[in-house]
Amino acid sequence: MIFLTRRATFSASHYYWNESWTAARNEEVFGRCANRNGHGHNYTLEVTVAGEPDPVTGFVVDLKWLKDVMEQEVLAAFDHRHLNLEVPEFASAIPTTENIAIAAWKRLEPAIAAGGGARLNKVRVYETAEIFAEYRGEV
Amino acid sequence: MIFLTRRATFSASHYYWNESWTAARNEEVFGRCANRNGHGHNYTLEVTVAGEPDPVTGFVVDLKWLKDVMEQEVLAAFDHRHLNLEVPEFASAIPTTENIAIAAWKRLEPAIAAGGGARLNKVRVYETAEIFAEYRGEV
Amino acid sequence: MIFLTRRATFSASHYYWNESWTAARNEEVFGRCANRNGHGHNYTLEVTVAGEPDPVTGFVVDLKWLKDVMEQEVLAAFDHRHLNLEVPEFASAIPTTENIAIAAWKRLEPAIAAGGGARLNKVRVYETAEIFAEYRGEV
Amino acid sequence: MIFLTRRATFSASHYYWNESWTAARNEEVFGRCANRNGHGHNYTLEVTVAGEPDPVTGFVVDLKWLKDVMEQEVLAAFDHRHLNLEVPEFASAIPTTENIAIAAWKRLEPAIAAGGGARLNKVRVYETAEIFAEYRGEV
Amino acid sequence: MIFLTRRATFSASHYYWNESWTAARNEEVFGRCANRNGHGHNYTLEVTVAGEPDPVTGFVVDLKWLKDVMEQEVLAAFDHRHLNLEVPEFASAIPTTENIAIAAWKRLEPAIAAGGGARLNKVRVYETAEIFAEYRGEV
Amino acid sequence: MIFLTRRATFSASHYYWNESWTAARNEEVFGRCANRNGHGHNYTLEVTVAGEPDPVTGFVVDLKWLKDVMEQEVLAAFDHRHLNLEVPEFASAIPTTENIAIAAWKRLEPAIAAGGGARLNKVRVYETAEIFAEYRGEV
Repeated sequence: MIFLTRRATFSASHYYWNESWTAARNEEVFGRCANRNGHGHNYTLEVTVAGEPDPVTGFVVDLKWLKDVMEQEVLAAFDHRHLNLEVPEFASAIPTTENIAIAAWKRLEPAIAAGGGARLNKVRVYETAEIFAEYRGEV
Repeated sequence: MIFLTRRATFSASHYYWNESWTAARNEEVFGRCANRNGHGHNYTLEVTVAGEPDPVTGFVVDLKWLKDVMEQEVLAAFDHRHLNLEVPEFASAIPTTENIAIAAWKRLEPAIAAGGGARLNKVRVYETAEIFAEYRGEV
Repeated sequence: MIFLTRRATFSASHYYWNESWTAARNEEVFGRCANRNGHGHNYTLEVTVAGEPDPVTGFVVDLKWLKDVMEQEVLAAFDHRHLNLEVPEFASAIPTTENIAIAAWKRLEPAIAAGGGARLNKVRVYETAEIFAEYRGEV
Repeated sequence: MIFLTRRATFSASHYYWNESWTAARNEEVFGRCANRNGHGHNYTLEVTVAGEPDPVTGFVVDLKWLKDVMEQEVLAAFDHRHLNLEVPEFASAIPTTENIAIAAWKRLEPAIAAGGGARLNKVRVYETAEIFAEYRGEV
Repeated sequence: MIFLTRRATFSASHYYWNESWTAARNEEVFGRCANRNGHGHNYTLEVTVAGEPDPVTGFVVDLKWLKDVMEQEVLAAFDHRHLNLEVPEFASAIPTTENIAIAAWKRLEPAIAAGGGARLNKVRVYETAEIFAEYRGEV
Repeated sequence: MIFLTRRATFSASHYYWNESWTAARNEEVFGRCANRNGHGHNYTLEVTVAGEPDPVTGFVVDLKWLKDVMEQEVLAAFDHRHLNLEVPEFASAIPTTENIAIAAWKRLEPAIAAGGGARLNKVRVYETAEIFAEYRGEV
């Protein structure tokens, strides 16, 4: 079993806000992230697939195909977007790094499973160089 | 003469939009950056001061003081903000990396000059790891 | 289950020396690290907690709280310190990267458990960009 | 149990080519990597060993010894080499990042086991900052 | 005047060899780089242009255009290539980092001058994270 | 003219203390850096030489020779040392990043001039990823 990882970056805006709370409560819990004009990040998405290298090609999966899957399933929806306003998952859930990692997993998992060669093992999302969240599915 | 540099980061949103143009023209020139919901970046601000090290302390400037100046003059205004909507310089100028570097210089220059020990030499702003702009004042 | 990680850095001095050995034996085993004047590093501390995101906030833990825990439990004791001379754990154990990771875990684990939202999953300590040690508790 | 990791880099050339295929098929599957003049990378090799820190030295293994093992077992054979033409493993297997990680594991595992203090836990190979493969042995 | 920089990477093979020398002399001067099978690197190309930001767009140059120029003038010729065997400049000159920087400058300078908005100021080429060469034209 | 740069790292301890001041004054000016047990850093030394590439070798200087010069002139004296206690320059001057850059320049300049091929252009010293000082000689 080999674990093969590919990274990509996307730039997006977000804010943290709970509609059922007062503004004061939102600011108390979320601090500067509660600014409803939004602020943004250069996110790094790190996708790991697990499988056996094909004996002929030496590939677990074709990395060009994996790049396209990441592009179509995640970056097309997240890059240069306002996560709260433009990504359906975050109409109801706050776009924390944790929830972004879960959303990316759910978008990627069927497409990678359909590719046939390997299964999705891990999704890691960096909000900054200091903060990242990792999701490995429901296990 | 020693050139002493300190880095800091800030996270902000922006978009590129010229009010006097049609939407089609904005999208043609600015591409995905014309999305008015905004998108964002982790910017890196790199501030270089030039001067002679004080013979007693060995400091060109006190780096704690420089950190505070960067915090007060730039980060307090830019970090976790929407640059177009909340920073006065970008009410009229588009917040490109070039213009952010110029705005940061204009904010920092008087405060550093007032500190007495050194003069501002250079401001560099990274929008991503691949793109940065540098301004050295009007020379 | 989400694994959420936060990084911080600290600068410290240390040396490797076994009091029960001769100087020659110390130099043979520890090489340049046996210099008792000490030398130092910019360490990176990487703390991973595991838990479920809170359905309301989207947080596994509040990252500001995690930063404060890291600051109070580890950085306040290790940063700008001489590990051998000022940190109790290293009065008897040599402050190798391995032992620093274990000491950081033992300091962090009760404070994170007391926070309630998640449990400590992993502590990683980088001595340089080329060398790091990881501890996951007694498992 | 502590997981101790050391990194090293090596520069090598390679190409992807299956002798039993036509040139057209090779180019279709391998794209620009099928250029038989070769192209190259600065690879990063990351070797993790697992064990208990020695109560006297605080070491899982001596990092100088680990560096020498990595040098002798892997870098001496891979660094400044053309992997297809000069490394025996790649006479028959295509030198993908996946296969390089497996080859490095097989070279390192007996030497680390013979060292006595710890066992090889994981080998990670970065082809670029965006792509890496990890092998943990046959488990 | 603003200095705007964009980075890109390319992977290539090369070797150092002077046809008019003996093999022994080549190995004495060039060491492991004299291996004629070639070895390779992930190079980073850093291109700086200087100019005034356009008052309407805030751009010194359009970064998408600069990316395309770098792609067409340099990466199309250097990426996934063997520099000695496939790039005309290196039929006669050894592809050291110094000479790669000069060759990239000569390829980029007319295309950037023709773009009209700014002039090429500096080309920097990293062979590894530890080694880089910078060329600023004939001044 | 080409500017060729090589990086190296060293790990050292230091503290900031002015013998002619009271302890209170030292702590007021130097903060946590005044801890006389010392603390340390992984410093990065970046040395730039300027010259014309040799038409035969393509080298401004031989990078192996430059590495040896950096090793002999700076790293042999600074690496795994306590700068205040073991490096003569810092018996009288405080080992700030500024003064370390000047000391490194003075050690390197004659050795590089003696090498004949190029002249020292710039020395940059990083104390952390956020702080660096650059010296270009008395100009």
